Amino acid sequence: MVTGTEVLSGRVTDRNGPWVARQLLEMGVDVAHITVCGDRPLDLTAQLQFLADQHVDLIVTTGGLGPTADDLTVATVAALYGRELHLDNELEQRIRTIVQRWRSRLSSSADSEPLLAGIRKQALVPRGAHSIPPTGTAPGVAMPANDSGTLPTILILPGPPRELQAMWQDALDSPPVADVLVRRTQVSQNTIRAYGLSEADLAATLRTAERTIPRFGDLEITTCLRLGELEIVTRYATPAATTYAHLASLIDEHHGTQVFSTDGSTIDDIVANRLSGHRIATAESCTGGMIAARLTERAGSSAYVVGAVVSYANEVKSSLLDVSPEIIDEFGAVSEPVVASMAEGALQRLGVDIALSTSGIAGPGGGTDLKPVGTVCFAVAFTGRPTITRTLHLPGDRTSVRSLSTTAAMHMLADALAFDH
Amino acid sequence: MVTGTEVLSGRVTDRNGPWVARQLLEMGVDVAHITVCGDRPLDLTAQLQFLADQHVDLIVTTGGLGPTADDLTVATVAALYGRELHLDNELEQRIRTIVQRWRSRLSSSADSEPLLAGIRKQALVPRGAHSIPPTGTAPGVAMPANDSGTLPTILILPGPPRELQAMWQDALDSPPVADVLVRRTQVSQNTIRAYGLSEADLAATLRTAERTIPRFGDLEITTCLRLGELEIVTRYATPAATTYAHLASLIDEHHGTQVFSTDGSTIDDIVANRLSGHRIATAESCTGGMIAARLTERAGSSAYVVGAVVSYANEVKSSLLDVSPEIIDEFGAVSEPVVASMAEGALQRLGVDIALSTSGIAGPGGGTDLKPVGTVCFAVAFTGRPTITRTLHLPGDRTSVRSLSTTAAMHMLADALAFDH
Repeated sequence: MVTGTEVLSGRVTDRNGPWVARQLLEMGVDVAHITVCGDRPLDLTAQLQFLADQHVDLIVTTGGLGPTADDLTVATVAALYGRELHLDNELEQRIRTIVQRWRSRLSSSADSEPLLAGIRKQALVPRGAHSIPPTGTAPGVAMPANDSGTLPTILILPGPPRELQAMWQDALDSPPVADVLVRRTQVSQNTIRAYGLSEADLAATLRTAERTIPRFGDLEITTCLRLGELEIVTRYATPAATTYAHLASLIDEHHGTQVFSTDGSTIDDIVANRLSGHRIATAESCTGGMIAARLTERAGSSAYVVGAVVSYANEVKSSLLDVSPEIIDEFGAVSEPVVASMAEGALQRLGVDIALSTSGIAGPGGGTDLKPVGTVCFAVAFTGRPTITRTLHLPGDRTSVRSLSTTAAMHMLADALAFDH
Repeated sequence: MVTGTEVLSGRVTDRNGPWVARQLLEMGVDVAHITVCGDRPLDLTAQLQFLADQHVDLIVTTGGLGPTADDLTVATVAALYGRELHLDNELEQRIRTIVQRWRSRLSSSADSEPLLAGIRKQALVPRGAHSIPPTGTAPGVAMPANDSGTLPTILILPGPPRELQAMWQDALDSPPVADVLVRRTQVSQNTIRAYGLSEADLAATLRTAERTIPRFGDLEITTCLRLGELEIVTRYATPAATTYAHLASLIDEHHGTQVFSTDGSTIDDIVANRLSGHRIATAESCTGGMIAARLTERAGSSAYVVGAVVSYANEVKSSLLDVSPEIIDEFGAVSEPVVASMAEGALQRLGVDIALSTSGIAGPGGGTDLKPVGTVCFAVAFTGRPTITRTLHLPGDRTSVRSLSTTAAMHMLADALAFDH
């Protein structure tokens, strides 16, 4: 149960529900429902009661643990479970120390009495519950199921994702939660990732698998297509590992050229790994710096990323990447000769051994009959090898074309670097 | 009710729940609950029944309208409402035409009988329901409340966000949904955005407002802090407009220097607007191209974005931005003299009249006592004016430091350009 009016109203994207779901699934805990609730006690109670009525073993709540009046989760849970709140003095002192340390670094105009009231509120714990040490100012709470078993074990976590994630291991170790987790099934989860494989083609392979692999029904398969990458996630009780091995080899047999990862690694992991020992630069037009931003998102990327030129205007293609104006005039800025020249220019100018370039029509304007919106040219230049170029026609709006281009570029890089590994 | 195992399991971020919630809220429809469900009929039924029990006037579902067996929404709803499914022949023909058009462009290996079965499935409509024309292959369904009023009006929409959004207006106009919407309250919603204002300081102002503004309780205020920007959204029944005007002027009085938008515009809107007639370039180190990517995200940005240099390695700062190696040696790459020189170099090399630069320590490594992780230097160079420099100490991990830097850069740009407007 994710709480917060800002999430319910769609102004903030919830990151906690998906994160908690992934953690639980990986541990072998099935997730039945996620609910999102505003800061209204009746709605909170209704959702808690609904989840309890579904006979779940554990409810996890996020948010509503702040110092202000609209943070209601602990009080609402305590009321539903019929547990009194008591002030945990040690916890109060601990939160006060944290808050004082923060305030000494800030010049805050908040007056002191509301502040102390807020701290006291955050140190209220329902009787019979365990508090989990705060990683921000809000402690978590873990409370066992009620005696009649009508209300399940509940884990109450703070809303800020960083605080929640920092608290997660302590939360799992708290006695009420640990008692539930010992009852979980041992499951395995494997992920196969393919690029350029359609859902329809995979569906045909899965129909074959259904006919030919014994006990295929023991596998729970979900697929998801995102930016041209098809992710195939399979969960199964550990004894079904042989069944999964059959499926994995069938997929490899039918779609081996498109599969790029079977061990959970992402294309970013693969590119980073293969770039070790190289020096790379990008020369970007329609992607406007997105590929450089993606490569440098990774800690340690300064070992191989030298830099980038975003040559949005044609004169920058010439002045910083030595693309001759004549080539641009003859073939147009969105053309394979131009991207080849951009990549080769980056190779020289930035002193790298591999360079990737893009130039395309992201839209909404700028498309022609010959080069409609979505036309994107790519090149990879590699010292001592012929430059590779490629043109793709990518669907969707500006955001879609740019994102698909960035992912396509990562796959081109991975392929170009594969020779070395 | 958002359906789909890929959403429930946290592998895909739900975009439909927030989008639908925002549309409804803007129209004056209150959103009470969002629920996320996997593709299991019992869980779907349980969530639908829960929402009905909360006496909502309208349930909107997304997802589960595809051709395959795990797409269950229409059948599940029909069973709960006790309505038979019938095949809409005209709709079937329509979907078949769409699918044939797609298939003629693809070489699909899916065999024909499953395909036709899928099309027939998608053309099944519950008795008494209105179908909404497909924008992909899946039609939407709008069904009125049942006679006893125990089950509310329900609007069933497809899962792919683009299909859903394209169908939205037709869905609102369908008779069952339109009948519900006439009963909505007329509400207004206003957004104030501030940069560098803390939630605690705003809370103090809101306490003052509560004491001094008559009928303050008529305003429903939610605040949200994201990347240093504090968003204050106020909803109110239209007659409370005067009360809102009081609040807006109180916020302006207390925090006027931090407020940057009162008309719904974002910092990206403001920067784009102010860049009209200018030519801009960026010179980025720790942000690795994120600022250029953000500026070029906008359609039409080629009118003012000339390009960027990502000078991740020091030698690129010198070779492409003319930063003298002596300055780097003397002050370090993360220093105001270096960012000033980077911005001025970009001004010259890219032939622009405004250039923004960044250099910082995004972490996790590279921090020192004097320049800890999170130290980021910025400069704005503007033809004919002294270059402005600034150093910020930004909290959090690598992703956080880079995102906060990008937003800070946007605000520096807006401020630097404000003189002209």
